[in-house]
Amino acid sequence: MNFTQRLLSCARQKDSWLCVGLDPHPERFPEKLKDDANALFTFCAEIVASTAGAAAAFKLNFAFFEAAGAAGWAVLEKLLKIIPSNVITIADAKRGDIGSSSEMYARAIFERLGFDAVTVNPFMGSDSVAPFLQRPAKGAFVLCLTSNPGARDFQYFSDGKNRLYQNVIAKVNDWNQKQNCGLVAGATQPAELRAIRAAAPNLPLLIPGVGTQGGDLKAAVLNGTDANGELALINVSRGIIYQSRGDDFAEAAGREAERLRGQINQIRRKAFAKK
Amino acid sequence: MNFTQRLLSCARQKDSWLCVGLDPHPERFPEKLKDDANALFTFCAEIVASTAGAAAAFKLNFAFFEAAGAAGWAVLEKLLKIIPSNVITIADAKRGDIGSSSEMYARAIFERLGFDAVTVNPFMGSDSVAPFLQRPAKGAFVLCLTSNPGARDFQYFSDGKNRLYQNVIAKVNDWNQKQNCGLVAGATQPAELRAIRAAAPNLPLLIPGVGTQGGDLKAAVLNGTDANGELALINVSRGIIYQSRGDDFAEAAGREAERLRGQINQIRRKAFAKK
Repeated sequence: MNFTQRLLSCARQKDSWLCVGLDPHPERFPEKLKDDANALFTFCAEIVASTAGAAAAFKLNFAFFEAAGAAGWAVLEKLLKIIPSNVITIADAKRGDIGSSSEMYARAIFERLGFDAVTVNPFMGSDSVAPFLQRPAKGAFVLCLTSNPGARDFQYFSDGKNRLYQNVIAKVNDWNQKQNCGLVAGATQPAELRAIRAAAPNLPLLIPGVGTQGGDLKAAVLNGTDANGELALINVSRGIIYQSRGDDFAEAAGREAERLRGQINQIRRKAFAKK
Repeated sequence: MNFTQRLLSCARQKDSWLCVGLDPHPERFPEKLKDDANALFTFCAEIVASTAGAAAAFKLNFAFFEAAGAAGWAVLEKLLKIIPSNVITIADAKRGDIGSSSEMYARAIFERLGFDAVTVNPFMGSDSVAPFLQRPAKGAFVLCLTSNPGARDFQYFSDGKNRLYQNVIAKVNDWNQKQNCGLVAGATQPAELRAIRAAAPNLPLLIPGVGTQGGDLKAAVLNGTDANGELALINVSRGIIYQSRGDDFAEAAGREAERLRGQINQIRRKAFAKK
């Protein structure tokens, strides 16, 4: 089964297009973990346990694990072993290098850690992305139009006809020979998200930026889903994992994930049920 | 002292503009390490010891360490403790993410690991790079025109006046308020390297691609150095560290590094001594 099929199958089985983002920041951990030497693992493991039922995917933001050094990488290794196999795991690592180096990054993420998918930066071009596309069952979400203010600096650069991010879409459509490519497209720019979906009708979209970054959930779902109301993974990170700093932090995260799963489905069904 | 001053001071003291690239690939390790459980560390540590005298900088390619997982990150941590303080350490990690995530990557690389500099991918724009520029003594080499074939896919994208990589130069000149920015500019494209130097007269250039990737050393030095014949770090990785697979692998690497240091200086002096 190729990655796109795996994602579809997993999301349909769970009836969820919610991606839970794990951006674990020690300064925001709940009180009860403040003397826990393994707080990074404990926090993530509890969130995983409480939200896995509602999540189609987990997106692990490598920056927050690497900030803990080798110990943080050890936590990544442990987490990948406890995440249920019916949730897609996305390494939000934004890697990309010359071919021989990207191949080593791909081995690290897909083989050593065992992720199902990775986020990739396209700046260095085809041979920097190709090593992430060799395994049909493993996916690569290529940065296209990101959710941050600086996105405009280069991604909007235009030749008068197309912007850079639109060129990225064209390339990724080409690279999708094994049906294992996707795009990262921020929820903060709904009109562009709609155009990205139109230009890439068959690619899974990973949509960050809902919540803390200001993106609107309804607009993200309506503009990001495909003709069947699918293939749009709506990522929420801080809005889920920091719902509470009390002893109930995991339960609160689980409730919020379940609420978001339902809300996404309600928007999808209302808009797409009669198509 | 800001990063540019540190780099200049270090290179002048060592009389070297050679950057030794550590891309440790287990399949290319010498015979005598084949039963060494710590081969990754042993290999790198011996190369560091034998080449540190000739090197202005070490560039550690994170892909090759991450391929060994958390253990590879532990090797990074150990290596940073044994690299002499008169050699600039560059984390070739090509990071870049939304501001809050980049800040965590910057902490990981500059504080947790203690690197002097990092390579950064500019695709996500100003706020994705800014966190790497907060510490004046720590440098960020921003990808500009890379040495791989795929570089042309997006870096050559043009609005009719400028190519994307030229826009990157303009931005980085702006971002260089603390004198701690540099550019990554591949040796494989000498004419462009010359133009990059002209557009960024004061930025340190990190120049990969000499040797295995086909770039010419002389052209890299002549086109990459500044008006004083300085500020161009010529990186050689595989050409140094895989000189020999015999028991003398470290000595062979040391000799090659010394030879390259001399050759770079000869080219520099011939061209620039009389300016």
